[in-house]
Amino acid sequence: MQHYEKQKVCPKFEKAFMLIGKRWTGLIVRILMEGKARFTDLESAIPNLSGRMLAERLRELEQENIIRRTVYGEVPVRIEYELTDKGSDLAEALNGVQIWAEKWNN
Amino acid sequence: MQHYEKQKVCPKFEKAFMLIGKRWTGLIVRILMEGKARFTDLESAIPNLSGRMLAERLRELEQENIIRRTVYGEVPVRIEYELTDKGSDLAEALNGVQIWAEKWNN
Repeated sequence: MQHYEKQKVCPKFEKAFMLIGKRWTGLIVRILMEGKARFTDLESAIPNLSGRMLAERLRELEQENIIRRTVYGEVPVRIEYELTDKGSDLAEALNGVQIWAEKWNN
Repeated sequence: MQHYEKQKVCPKFEKAFMLIGKRWTGLIVRILMEGKARFTDLESAIPNLSGRMLAERLRELEQENIIRRTVYGEVPVRIEYELTDKGSDLAEALNGVQIWAEKWNN
């Protein structure tokens, strides 16, 4: 009988995947690649995503230092989300997935 | 007030992310990059993943033509999982995520 010895999965990769593998997270990052966005911009770009879920995802991404949230003291208050350096780097990695999707999913 | 016009997210990308973004799926694909594996190999490589969930993820990946399941008529029966061409291509894209994880998550 053949034996298979596989190394345990890298915990860093697992952590990254637990993060970006969450529903909608990859999409949010990808939209922010195009530049800063307000909450309502993201909401309208992903019609199937509820406001509550979007807020939760944004909070997680902010905690992981993938996005930065800036509040402008205007009336009405303006809040913008943008990628950090860590986030831009992730977005580039996700581009590879985009290329794969274009090639194989029709 | 500034306006932001963002194109709707590409449905192919969304579909790809709904698939590989599912918990554990990215990890399973990555393990299969190293070669064929039996169910028990995958089970032991991902200790936190239940057998029931693993079976479900493998079924989904097979349906999407990312992995191939081969049953060998031995006693006891041997079942092996391996990546298809589409799956290998995906695994390469996921490597970019691995590199990102190594760089930014410590």
